[in-house]
Amino acid sequence: MPPVDGYTERRRTVASGLAGRKLDAMLIAFSPNLRYLTGFTGSNGSLLLLPDDAILFTDPRYQIQARQEVNCRVRIAKGALLLDVAAAIGKLRLRRIGYEPSRMTCDFFNSLTARLPLKTSLEAVSGWIEELRMIKSPPEQQLIRRSVETNSRAFDQAVARARAGMKEQDLAAELEYRMRRLGAEKPAFETIVAAGARSALPHAQPTRARMEAGGLVVVDMGAMQDGYCSDMTRMLFLGTPPAKVKRTYRAVLEAQLAAIDTVRPGVSTAQVDRQARRVLKSYGLDRAFVHSTGHGLGLEIHEPPRIGKRDKSRLKAGMTVTIEPGVYLEGFGGIRIEDTVVVTETGCEILTPTSKELREI
Amino acid sequence: MPPVDGYTERRRTVASGLAGRKLDAMLIAFSPNLRYLTGFTGSNGSLLLLPDDAILFTDPRYQIQARQEVNCRVRIAKGALLLDVAAAIGKLRLRRIGYEPSRMTCDFFNSLTARLPLKTSLEAVSGWIEELRMIKSPPEQQLIRRSVETNSRAFDQAVARARAGMKEQDLAAELEYRMRRLGAEKPAFETIVAAGARSALPHAQPTRARMEAGGLVVVDMGAMQDGYCSDMTRMLFLGTPPAKVKRTYRAVLEAQLAAIDTVRPGVSTAQVDRQARRVLKSYGLDRAFVHSTGHGLGLEIHEPPRIGKRDKSRLKAGMTVTIEPGVYLEGFGGIRIEDTVVVTETGCEILTPTSKELREI
Repeated sequence: MPPVDGYTERRRTVASGLAGRKLDAMLIAFSPNLRYLTGFTGSNGSLLLLPDDAILFTDPRYQIQARQEVNCRVRIAKGALLLDVAAAIGKLRLRRIGYEPSRMTCDFFNSLTARLPLKTSLEAVSGWIEELRMIKSPPEQQLIRRSVETNSRAFDQAVARARAGMKEQDLAAELEYRMRRLGAEKPAFETIVAAGARSALPHAQPTRARMEAGGLVVVDMGAMQDGYCSDMTRMLFLGTPPAKVKRTYRAVLEAQLAAIDTVRPGVSTAQVDRQARRVLKSYGLDRAFVHSTGHGLGLEIHEPPRIGKRDKSRLKAGMTVTIEPGVYLEGFGGIRIEDTVVVTETGCEILTPTSKELREI
Repeated sequence: MPPVDGYTERRRTVASGLAGRKLDAMLIAFSPNLRYLTGFTGSNGSLLLLPDDAILFTDPRYQIQARQEVNCRVRIAKGALLLDVAAAIGKLRLRRIGYEPSRMTCDFFNSLTARLPLKTSLEAVSGWIEELRMIKSPPEQQLIRRSVETNSRAFDQAVARARAGMKEQDLAAELEYRMRRLGAEKPAFETIVAAGARSALPHAQPTRARMEAGGLVVVDMGAMQDGYCSDMTRMLFLGTPPAKVKRTYRAVLEAQLAAIDTVRPGVSTAQVDRQARRVLKSYGLDRAFVHSTGHGLGLEIHEPPRIGKRDKSRLKAGMTVTIEPGVYLEGFGGIRIEDTVVVTETGCEILTPTSKELREI
């Protein structure tokens, strides 16, 4: 018998849930779910998970890599993976196959269905693996902690070089260079550096625009290290911030701290979101807060639970989430403050070590 | 009347093709297609394209940005975009809506279908926008050329610092930092730096492994600049290459040059692929060439046409493609050489200016 490792154990958890869902197998092709269940990091793979077996299908580019990374059976497909997957389903006489409807394209579904025996059906199973992924094991928490630390160190190193006149994209380049040198594979998402009025765009891409004296700069960055994400937003001000900037900054910080303060097992994510909104409302800023308060993160930068107005999930120990209220005022700019936190048995721990003072440059 | 710009013209091309496909509208949500038709660079959008109108749906995060980037109507959705899209389809009494089955998830399709009037249907339309995107206009070619030049300059600058003992991921970090400083938004894909035996993994991610003297290093990198991709692979050797490396390198180079030599309008992509394989076969290396010879690139790093054994497309002037044969020998390593070329009226132009000598470090 092979030793029980993380991947084998996770596959066993899913395998043991098949019968209860009346499934003969589960088909998983979404890359983060695949990595969670097998360790495979290639970009093209499908896992057919059976009650007592698992087969990973991939293409010849990943032949050597799959054998190194994966401890279940591997089949190298010569053509489209779905042909081999369909053939295996037929040969194994499987009848009810679970699939991930929010991860599979209509094309893949239709092509696979067309190749299955008449009595075989694909059954939509939503969010099963994502639900397992929500609770991070201690080794996963450790990886996220490391990713957060890399990210914060990269921020410190790069911001030490920031100055008025620097292009947004040059600061972004510096931030990403530093995180890679500190051990990250890549940024977890496109680093945001947005200066002046552009800071009012919540998802601004860095441009050739220069950061001007007397202006705000939002820096929203995350690392991906050993597959796990971090996420942090901090604000810089080039010069001495005027009263309105300071006031708005304090309001957002108060909202962020209040939201963090509510994080503990059993609390609904809507309640955390409400807390941030309540504080911003007391400053007349609630309408300028145009997104949700946070999101889970792990193998993906955005994963369940979402922390928004309409969300019904409840926090549990082991979840890792961001808390990131922000306000966006056209013409004035935007201010957002974001940490990565882990839900503990009694509350939460803020993983992000970076100071939350408005950083004057 | 608004002035005719690239985006309006492109939308008119699609709009004028609706009637022939018996469609009342086309729904486009795939980000590169959306960008091609509107200029919108946000991550969440759906375009409803009508014979004489176009509406872009996005969420509040992109409210300001969409107004800056897009010259058609913009609607900001409060909840899931598909609710607003469904409502608009109902209100406009549209009956047959084209959708992109290889880009839409089963979930989106099912949720949208459930919200449409009974007499309204979604009709699969595959690869229409991608087909338009295959032929690059002169301004697009110019953008790709710039992206290629940035990429090659970044290679030169970073490789000047490469030395034995350096970690794969540190060279990757340097390459990406240089491309960003030279004007790229980001790498077009995860930069590959794979040393020694790891060079035999066609899609290796850079690791903490050090590049050792007496070993091969494959560098496969691309920039994304103003939305357009470049792609290049070059080989380094740390020291003086032994005869087998030189011999294998020459075989791959001969295959690459022979394939490039066949590129001209009217030639099938399978023929280009065959040419590379023919040369490698003469060296007994054809079985070590485990992927296709190349692919189109533009707003995406991989887009039609594919240049592989089973592909039936024919080259046309204005297409931009990679030519990248490679051989992978477990234990020995891998060798790949890749350029970005544009198909001209009479043949092709190699855009990549970097020397194709095996680079000794």
